[in-house]
Amino acid sequence: MTLLFPRAVDLTRIDLAIESSRTRSSFLLQPPLLRHDGALYGGTAIAVSVMAMEAATQRDVQWVTTQFVAPGQNGETIDVATDVLALGRRTAQVRVTATVDDRVIFASLGSTGKRIDNGLTGQFERMPVAGGPDDATDSWQGHTRMGQVPDDPTFRRAVEYRHAPMPEGPGPVLMWARFTDGEAMTPAGLAFVADMVPVAIARGAGKLGAGTSLDNSMRFGEVGEVEWVLLELHGNLAAGGYGHGLVRVWSQDGDYLAIGSQTASMIYIFDEGAGSPFDTTS
Amino acid sequence: MTLLFPRAVDLTRIDLAIESSRTRSSFLLQPPLLRHDGALYGGTAIAVSVMAMEAATQRDVQWVTTQFVAPGQNGETIDVATDVLALGRRTAQVRVTATVDDRVIFASLGSTGKRIDNGLTGQFERMPVAGGPDDATDSWQGHTRMGQVPDDPTFRRAVEYRHAPMPEGPGPVLMWARFTDGEAMTPAGLAFVADMVPVAIARGAGKLGAGTSLDNSMRFGEVGEVEWVLLELHGNLAAGGYGHGLVRVWSQDGDYLAIGSQTASMIYIFDEGAGSPFDTTS
Repeated sequence: MTLLFPRAVDLTRIDLAIESSRTRSSFLLQPPLLRHDGALYGGTAIAVSVMAMEAATQRDVQWVTTQFVAPGQNGETIDVATDVLALGRRTAQVRVTATVDDRVIFASLGSTGKRIDNGLTGQFERMPVAGGPDDATDSWQGHTRMGQVPDDPTFRRAVEYRHAPMPEGPGPVLMWARFTDGEAMTPAGLAFVADMVPVAIARGAGKLGAGTSLDNSMRFGEVGEVEWVLLELHGNLAAGGYGHGLVRVWSQDGDYLAIGSQTASMIYIFDEGAGSPFDTTS
Repeated sequence: MTLLFPRAVDLTRIDLAIESSRTRSSFLLQPPLLRHDGALYGGTAIAVSVMAMEAATQRDVQWVTTQFVAPGQNGETIDVATDVLALGRRTAQVRVTATVDDRVIFASLGSTGKRIDNGLTGQFERMPVAGGPDDATDSWQGHTRMGQVPDDPTFRRAVEYRHAPMPEGPGPVLMWARFTDGEAMTPAGLAFVADMVPVAIARGAGKLGAGTSLDNSMRFGEVGEVEWVLLELHGNLAAGGYGHGLVRVWSQDGDYLAIGSQTASMIYIFDEGAGSPFDTTS
């Protein structure tokens, strides 16, 4: 039997060692799988969960929710246990638990499944007008110049983000993203680059800043062979310091690749001009 | 210590017996907690998960994802185990596993937390124009007349749904919902009534019908004291028989109470005029 999963390009980005049972795996947490404070980047956790679910069931991921439980640290080896809770003819229901020793680092639920040729297929929402990646500016957090790969231990070394031009006032945050390896997107890759919703929750409130994501949930269509994806990020609502938002993911050709959502504790919120907690140049 | 959770009204709707440890509970699956085929209704599973998470942590639910693993059957007692994976100063990360004997029936992840007075609060999207519940028609699936509680073993005995007037063509499905007990909504109650997304995925594709939900995910604001809620249901996209959609939940006063999303296997799809698989009168 030829294994369809894990996908080769995913393994070049995250070196997940999968045991022959395919329900246990592990990876070394190291650059560029980190966030700004050196802990596990949320996009890494959801991407690993997708890879583990696909590998265990040999089916395409349909949706995944990853809950961020504790901050794994640079240099730790994270063990990933994959439970196939149900294995139907088309759909599998899967649960993932990632640990370091006895500490749960993240936990995920999701489904994989076999898409069928005559099954319902379509997109029922419209791509926003955003220009292309060449019309966008690599001003995200002001760290990098266009096309330059930053010398950075975080996920930003692996992903190039460009801000699409946006009108003033309320509206979505529009960002183009691609992997700096120049290789194609995958479902795991999409999940890795799209862990950006808290920024849009802050913007929804007319603020700058972000928050600590509690989870990340993604629902996938056919991803196909694309390099750049457009992230259309919206804040939905917030109450008492917890905020919710969503992200639609589009190809340059207007294909609707995925939709995701996140809840975050919105603790790093500030007014424009007040200085950014992410500004490491000052 | 006075326990804030479970909420009294939730217990009148779902008789969840919670052990003194508050991390184990159980309930008898019986009418009206069922779906049309007599199995566990998805809205019951997510509502029970919310109740279990709130009871275990004594904090308000912020988000929950429930995965439907196997169909619990009428008359079965379902055991619910609640793992508090992390208990922070404000936020708790919780996992729920519901079983009958060794069979997993559903599994959930979610966060509860303490909302703070000066924490980010706001709504960043607009309520659709839908009239009020008195402008809506109780034509949902053609089973009931306005204000009449159907003699039905399913969740539809517990919930009154009314279709808001909708323009022809693509657009959201707008439904008002309230509990027939006349009591107020709660987060668990919202999750119970809002398990309706597959209908909107079908409508997004210009079809009638629905699908088998694989999961249900809800993200909550302050629910407050409301009886009726407006469900604003959208299909997002579908690929190879799997579809994704979302639901925004609004009060009559325009308060944005929650946003949810679901993935479904869209197998019960048919063209208008071809007859409904839900039409039990024929």
